[in-house]
Amino acid sequence: MQSEIVCIGTELLMGKVNTNVSYLSEKLASIGLNFTYETTVGDSSKDIAEILKQSFTRSGIIFVTGGLGPTFDDLTREVVAGVLEKKLIFNREAMQAVAAFFAKRDLEMPKKNEVQAQIVEGARIIPNEIGTAPGQIIELQGHPGFKAETIILLPGPQFEIELMMNKTVLPYLKEKYGRGITKLLVLHVSGIGESKVDEEIKDIVGVERRLEGGDLRFALVAHPGVVDIVIIGSGKNEMLIDSFMAKAKNELKEKLGNHIFGENDQALPQVVGQLLGKNKQTLALAESCTGGLLGKMITDASGSSLYFKGALVAYNNLIKRDVLGVSQATLDKYGAVSAECAREMAVNIRKLLKSNLGIAITGIAGPGGGTAEKPVGLVHIALSGDKLDQVFTQNFSGNRRGIREKAAMFALDSLRQALLG
Amino acid sequence: MQSEIVCIGTELLMGKVNTNVSYLSEKLASIGLNFTYETTVGDSSKDIAEILKQSFTRSGIIFVTGGLGPTFDDLTREVVAGVLEKKLIFNREAMQAVAAFFAKRDLEMPKKNEVQAQIVEGARIIPNEIGTAPGQIIELQGHPGFKAETIILLPGPQFEIELMMNKTVLPYLKEKYGRGITKLLVLHVSGIGESKVDEEIKDIVGVERRLEGGDLRFALVAHPGVVDIVIIGSGKNEMLIDSFMAKAKNELKEKLGNHIFGENDQALPQVVGQLLGKNKQTLALAESCTGGLLGKMITDASGSSLYFKGALVAYNNLIKRDVLGVSQATLDKYGAVSAECAREMAVNIRKLLKSNLGIAITGIAGPGGGTAEKPVGLVHIALSGDKLDQVFTQNFSGNRRGIREKAAMFALDSLRQALLG
Repeated sequence: MQSEIVCIGTELLMGKVNTNVSYLSEKLASIGLNFTYETTVGDSSKDIAEILKQSFTRSGIIFVTGGLGPTFDDLTREVVAGVLEKKLIFNREAMQAVAAFFAKRDLEMPKKNEVQAQIVEGARIIPNEIGTAPGQIIELQGHPGFKAETIILLPGPQFEIELMMNKTVLPYLKEKYGRGITKLLVLHVSGIGESKVDEEIKDIVGVERRLEGGDLRFALVAHPGVVDIVIIGSGKNEMLIDSFMAKAKNELKEKLGNHIFGENDQALPQVVGQLLGKNKQTLALAESCTGGLLGKMITDASGSSLYFKGALVAYNNLIKRDVLGVSQATLDKYGAVSAECAREMAVNIRKLLKSNLGIAITGIAGPGGGTAEKPVGLVHIALSGDKLDQVFTQNFSGNRRGIREKAAMFALDSLRQALLG
Repeated sequence: MQSEIVCIGTELLMGKVNTNVSYLSEKLASIGLNFTYETTVGDSSKDIAEILKQSFTRSGIIFVTGGLGPTFDDLTREVVAGVLEKKLIFNREAMQAVAAFFAKRDLEMPKKNEVQAQIVEGARIIPNEIGTAPGQIIELQGHPGFKAETIILLPGPQFEIELMMNKTVLPYLKEKYGRGITKLLVLHVSGIGESKVDEEIKDIVGVERRLEGGDLRFALVAHPGVVDIVIIGSGKNEMLIDSFMAKAKNELKEKLGNHIFGENDQALPQVVGQLLGKNKQTLALAESCTGGLLGKMITDASGSSLYFKGALVAYNNLIKRDVLGVSQATLDKYGAVSAECAREMAVNIRKLLKSNLGIAITGIAGPGGGTAEKPVGLVHIALSGDKLDQVFTQNFSGNRRGIREKAAMFALDSLRQALLG
């Protein structure tokens, strides 16, 4: 069954990066489907209609994202109904859901939002628990000239799409189309760069690995501080795919060892959190140039209150001295961006916030503030614990954002390595 | 002149985020062009040919990215030539450039890279200084059935595209088509939701605004805590476009007042930072459920050390009491997620970090930890200053990430409103 996706929104043709295609294609792969085409079109009825006609003519499953909001430039409902020559029908269930969204927030529902209860004749509603725009599943049978048999309308914001996919759309598609199997395994690597990973594993991923009626493919994707190795197995025999993927994973683990910190949805902060929990350790942070980013990353994981005590963002140097207790002598002699200051910050934050372990980060994130001696990108990262005393000095490349992200990831990975012994 | 872009690469339909469209659309806007469609298609000759025929039939300028490498799945050269019924010709200049790429790196050129010197008959070469794949500009005149007059082939990696666009493609297009002008103005709105913004401004954006040989368009884009109003003006007379856009902007400002906090690349943290600087105020934060996110956002702006003292992430309740000095009575009577606790946190962080102003955030970001009385999404935000004492209680919707982002943005916007008086 050929699938494709049509993304609607002028902003996607004017600079906004589209991440929905990436998200939805990975979800579809998990049930053996994949997009043959993706098309983006602006908020113009004529252009949307033209593209939808093409899509409905050539594909069986069509995802349509965006344009389900309540405003003047939200045209999807109307145009889809027009192309299918169906009516838009006011749906009481959808109306109640939209109204409940506002009621829950003690807000009056704007009159405008009533349009979101308009449903293409015969469509099922995809409940949207965290936004006002319900989705729709439209089933077609024998529409003259169209191959389309399932049309799925979703809103534009990814966090709304995620819940709707997991709760409603994926189970529906799996039930209806899930025959072949595609499995995705992502191994997360830290502590070494993309080129190095590529070099280490080229003999493993370079081998042609064809299964009976299926195959194994590999891809590398680089993020700040992390490289992902993506293994894609597809075919008909699930046991066979599983065993091939497991074999490839073992070979990669043998090659990369501890640099592989997790799989699939395991993020580095969570992995570190689990290690802290297992070792019954608590963590506190003293952040300077990262300004709260490391604390934000650690608390992205729910349940982090079990091991995370808190952080002091000592952005101002007097706070490093007066609240965190870094000695004036250290600040005078070495400066606030120094290995010595980082070490004192890491030791002292443990005392202040009563934690077993401390991480400190101090550096120059730029673009201003660099000197010949202490250039932009210079970051000192210290770890402190009863039996732990490490200071790393790094020169990170990139812009302000990249330097801050790399510094935070490096700190997390250093702590992980230390916890692993 | 209608433009569109076709992106070639199976990886773009299997999880890899495509950033080329965003980059290229912003570049094109600078010379008054914009994409009407974007299509992504995998590495299949048949599918690529089908899409290219459609594009060549309906648009004048077609960008094609990807598929110019040396391997078996790089099909762009061959398919483009096939669809245009032109020959591929070995080009000595292109061959030398590819060879030079390897020579410069002391590498032997693999035999397979020779295919990269194949050029569509009559095409110009776009030199690629940092990759092996040269681009091509193909000029068509009166090809039966095709509207296409300029076809631009570029490789997939964005850093290669950037240099080729700036050095060759943009100057070429500007010379050939750069007559009209497109201008983009983005107004950032906070403190009210998308529906409300839409309702407020519908009379302004609903009016047909046609200029002599151009027009004004509007779009709304929602982000956590912020709604963007995008004004797109296009036409031939720059002064006229400017005056029309200025008029629309003034009308929107009259309608939305202080809710408009900035334009174009002005982010809310920067705007708040500028206000703090202007008022010679310093800020400190006491964060709980946001875990450092607000500090991270404020320090995203370089130069924030001028007004930002630091933050205490008091994730653990004992830290709220022992370090921040929230009274045990308050914690016992109202709990850590309460307006009372937020107020004490905001007052006390000013003393601890010696700032004029304090912001505190305490709430339940979920997914766990909610109760009937204190559900997930409940967040208390307090502002404290010499003449400032405000506590806001909000029920934010969304997942953990959305709730945290909305809480941080709400806190920033509340401070902005307070600073504006």
